[in-house]
Amino acid sequence: METANSIPLDAASHVPLYIQLRDRLERMIETGGLRSGERLLPTRGLALELGVNRATVEAAYAELESKGLIAGHVGRGTFVAPRATARALTPPPAMETDDGEFPWQGFFSDTVPPDDPLDALVRSTAEPGVISFAAAHPPSGVVPAGEFRRACDRVLRAHSNVALKPGPTGGYPPLQEMLAARLRRQGIAAEPEEITITNGCQQSLDLLAKAFLSPGQAVVIENPVYPGALLPFRQAGARVLALPVGADGADLAALENTLEGQRVRLILVTPNFQNPTGASMSLENRRRLLRIAQRFQTPVVENDTYGALSFSGKTAPSLKALDRRGSVIYLGSFSKAGFPGLRLGWCVAPPEATARLRRAKQATDLHTDQFVQAVMVEFARHHALDRAVDAVREACRVNAAHLAKEVARNFPGDVAWRVPQGGMSAWFRLPDGVNASAVLERARQHRVVFTPGAYFYFQAARPETFRLSFGNVRAAEIARGVKTLGEAIRVEMRASRSRRTVNRQGAGWSFV
Amino acid sequence: METANSIPLDAASHVPLYIQLRDRLERMIETGGLRSGERLLPTRGLALELGVNRATVEAAYAELESKGLIAGHVGRGTFVAPRATARALTPPPAMETDDGEFPWQGFFSDTVPPDDPLDALVRSTAEPGVISFAAAHPPSGVVPAGEFRRACDRVLRAHSNVALKPGPTGGYPPLQEMLAARLRRQGIAAEPEEITITNGCQQSLDLLAKAFLSPGQAVVIENPVYPGALLPFRQAGARVLALPVGADGADLAALENTLEGQRVRLILVTPNFQNPTGASMSLENRRRLLRIAQRFQTPVVENDTYGALSFSGKTAPSLKALDRRGSVIYLGSFSKAGFPGLRLGWCVAPPEATARLRRAKQATDLHTDQFVQAVMVEFARHHALDRAVDAVREACRVNAAHLAKEVARNFPGDVAWRVPQGGMSAWFRLPDGVNASAVLERARQHRVVFTPGAYFYFQAARPETFRLSFGNVRAAEIARGVKTLGEAIRVEMRASRSRRTVNRQGAGWSFV
Repeated sequence: METANSIPLDAASHVPLYIQLRDRLERMIETGGLRSGERLLPTRGLALELGVNRATVEAAYAELESKGLIAGHVGRGTFVAPRATARALTPPPAMETDDGEFPWQGFFSDTVPPDDPLDALVRSTAEPGVISFAAAHPPSGVVPAGEFRRACDRVLRAHSNVALKPGPTGGYPPLQEMLAARLRRQGIAAEPEEITITNGCQQSLDLLAKAFLSPGQAVVIENPVYPGALLPFRQAGARVLALPVGADGADLAALENTLEGQRVRLILVTPNFQNPTGASMSLENRRRLLRIAQRFQTPVVENDTYGALSFSGKTAPSLKALDRRGSVIYLGSFSKAGFPGLRLGWCVAPPEATARLRRAKQATDLHTDQFVQAVMVEFARHHALDRAVDAVREACRVNAAHLAKEVARNFPGDVAWRVPQGGMSAWFRLPDGVNASAVLERARQHRVVFTPGAYFYFQAARPETFRLSFGNVRAAEIARGVKTLGEAIRVEMRASRSRRTVNRQGAGWSFV
Repeated sequence: METANSIPLDAASHVPLYIQLRDRLERMIETGGLRSGERLLPTRGLALELGVNRATVEAAYAELESKGLIAGHVGRGTFVAPRATARALTPPPAMETDDGEFPWQGFFSDTVPPDDPLDALVRSTAEPGVISFAAAHPPSGVVPAGEFRRACDRVLRAHSNVALKPGPTGGYPPLQEMLAARLRRQGIAAEPEEITITNGCQQSLDLLAKAFLSPGQAVVIENPVYPGALLPFRQAGARVLALPVGADGADLAALENTLEGQRVRLILVTPNFQNPTGASMSLENRRRLLRIAQRFQTPVVENDTYGALSFSGKTAPSLKALDRRGSVIYLGSFSKAGFPGLRLGWCVAPPEATARLRRAKQATDLHTDQFVQAVMVEFARHHALDRAVDAVREACRVNAAHLAKEVARNFPGDVAWRVPQGGMSAWFRLPDGVNASAVLERARQHRVVFTPGAYFYFQAARPETFRLSFGNVRAAEIARGVKTLGEAIRVEMRASRSRRTVNRQGAGWSFV
C-alpha cells in the first residue's frame, strides 16, 4: 500500500472523513491502485499517516469489508480481497449479434423476496362463493363512505392548494398534530415532530429496516408472524432471529437468551393481539421486556396495528407509554381501522431516530400523498374517525362471538384455541400429527379456505396450527364455514390416525 | 470443515439449493460449527460431496462473501472471516443501571442517506417575499381542483367499496388500462399487466434498486442529476458510476468506456429534458444507446418524467418505443403534470422484471393508495387529465419564454445557456473561475434563490454551473429575479477577476 499522500482527505467537507476514506480506497481498488491480495496498512498506522482518528480508519475498513472488498486474516493483517478488483472490473462478454429476448434472470438482486404464498392463497380464493377466513381484512361496508366523501369535498374546496402540492417528508402537519392528540389520550406523550407519516405499517417497517439494519445485522421478530413483517428486513440483508410467541405474547426468556448470545439491532414486537396468534402481553411482561431491552441496550419497535380493536375497549399500556428512556418506536396505522386501501400509517420515534427515518422516507418516495392525509384530518373532525374505529371494533367483536359459538358447536374437543379478545384473527392447534395444510385441502374442496400456521413460521413451523381471520366474514358464512371446517378436521384426524401405524401421544401443548 | 453429512439439503424444496446451503453455512458460522479462520472445502470438492452443481456452491459462497462472513485468500483457499463468529455472537455489554437517554447514534445503518442539501435550500427559501428558482415544481393553480373534486365525488358514490379496500400490488386495474392506452399513443406497446403503479418516480427508483442491485454492484447514472436519483441506489449499497451529460444528453462514448471497464447492472437515463441540464437525446443517439446496452447486455431504465412537457408537443420516440428486445424499463409520473402532492407514478417493464418489481413493492408498502388511483382514472375521463397536462406545459412554455427574454436582457453575454425546449429547468454556465455558489450568496441577500450546479454533481462538480427552475415562478417574479441574478453575476464576476492575480483564459466550454 502506498503512503497516505495518495489519499487526500478534506476535513472541512460535510462528507464524513470515514466515508471519504472508504470511497478513496474503493476507487483505488477499482482502478487497480490497490490490487487483490495487497496488504493494507494497519488501522493505527494509517490513522497516524493520515492524521485522523483511528476510529475513522476502522469505520472505513469495516465498510469495505462488508462490501467484500477487503478481508482481515488472522495474524496476518488486512488484505484487498482476492476477487475485489476482478469483480469490479470484469464486464460481461460483449455480444454483437444477439437479437433474442433480454435475459432478465441474470439481473435480479439477491435480496428481492420470493412470492408471498399467503398472498397467492388470498388471491386464489377471491372468487365468489368461497368462504374465506384467509385474509386479516377489516369488515367492508362499515366505513361511512358518505362522510369520507364529504371530507374530500371540504378539503378540495378549502385546501386544494395545499393538498395537491408537494409536502414535507415527515407528513402533513395537521395530521401529525391530530395523531399527537390521539396518542396523548393513550398515554403516549409524543410531539407532532416525533411522528412520521408513512404509507401504512408495511412502509414503516421498510423505513426501519433501511434506517437501522446494515446487511448481516440481526433483528428479532416474533415467530410465528404475518409474512410481511419479515420482508423489509430480509430485503435489507438483515438476519432475522425468531422470538417464540406464547400464550402471554413474546417469550421473554427466549428473548434474553438471544440477546445474551448475539448483538441485536432491533426487537420487533406486537404487544396487542399479535398476528397470527392473537396473543397479548401482560403489563408485567411489557415492563419486563423494557428492562431486558434496556439491559442489552437494544431498541424496541412496537407494532400496535390492532390495539384499537380491543373488544373490551381496554389494553395494557403500550410499551411506548411505559418507556422512560426513549428506546421505543411505536407503529400505528389506519388500515385495520377500516381504511386498508388508503395506505396510511405512522411511526412515533425519538427525535434522533425520527431524523433518520425521514431521510430514509425522503430517499424512498419523498412523502406520503398529501391529499389523503388532509382528508383524514377532515374526516376525524366531529368524531367520524372514532365512529369508524368503533364500527370496525364492534363488527369484529360480533364476528368473534359468532366464531366462538360455532367453533364450540362444530370443532372436535381436542382442537385447542382461545376466544379472541380483540383484533380479527383466532389461532388454533389441531391434535399432534394432524396437518392443517391437509385440512385446508379438504376444506377447499368445499369452498372454504383459511391460513395454515406454516405460512407464519419462519423457523420451526408447527404444522398443526392454523389461523382463522374473521374481520370480513358475515355471520352466515361463519356458521357455514366453521361447520365445513369441523367436518374437514374430523375427516383429516381419522385419515391421519389411520396413516400412523403407531399412534404416539403428543406432548401437552402449553400454548393456549 | 466437517463433511457434507452435516449439511442436509432438500432438493424438493421451493427454496433454491444455493440459498439453503448459504443459510446452513451461515448458521454453522453463527453457532460456532464453523469457526473464524477455519478453511472451507473448495467449491468443487463440496459440490461433489453434496451431490450438487458446482455453481450452487459458488453462488452460496459468493453470498457469504458479500456478507463478510467468509473470504478467499490468494493461493490458500476460502476461510471463515476472522471476525465473522465474533461479530455474530458478541452482544453489547449488559447494563444494569443505565437510566439515561437511549444512545440512538450507535444504531443507524451504514446506508441511510445524508440530508439532502437541496431539500434544505428549498425549505429555507419557502418564506414569503423570496423569489425562488430553486425547486423544479410544476405551476400551482393550473390544476382544476373543481374537476378533481368532482372525480373524488363520483368515485366515492360509485366505487367506494373498491377504492377504500386493499388492492393488487401492481396497481388498480382500470388505471393500468388507462395508462396502457395512453402509452400506445406514444408508440409504447405495453400491456396493463406490464405496468406497476408506484408512489411516484422516487419510489420507482427505490423498487428498481431493491429488485436489481445487490450491495457493491454498479449502476450508471447521469452526472449531473437531481440528487434524489442517487439516494435509493446508495441506500441499497450499490456503486453509482457517473455518466457525463452533454448538449445532446448522455455521453455515449463515456458510457461505452464504462461498460468496457466493468460490469454494470442498470443504466439510468433521462432522454427528454434531463434534470438539471434540460438536455435531450437525438433519435440517432437513442438508437445508439440501445445498441450499446445490447452489446453489453445491460438493462436500461428510461426516466420520462418530463416527456409530456415538450413545448413543441413533440419529442423523439422513447427508448421504450424503440426497444425491440424488452431490455428497457420506462418510468412515468403524474407529479410533473400538476399532481406532485399525490405521489403517483408507474414503471413499465417486461413481465419477468415486472414480477420482481412487484415483489419489491409488496415488501415495501403492499400497494399504492387505491382511492387516489381510482380518482385519477375518473379525472382522466372526458380529457380532464389531458387538459391539466396541457395547462402545465403551456405555463412552463410561457415561463420559459419570459425567462429567455429576461436572461437576454440582464445576463452578461459570456454566461452560456440554451433556451429550454421543454420541462421546467434551464441550465447555465458562468465564465470559468466564477462560482455559482458565490452568486447564490449575493442573490440571496436580495431574496432571490436558485440551485448551484454543485448540488447535482456526484463527481467532478463544475462550480460555474447553475440551474434555474421556472415551473412555479410568476412572470413578474421572473423579471425581477433575473434582473437581480444578472446584477449578482456581474458583481461576482468582477470580484472573482480581482481575486485572481493571473486571469487565466479558460478552455472553451462545449456543453451548450
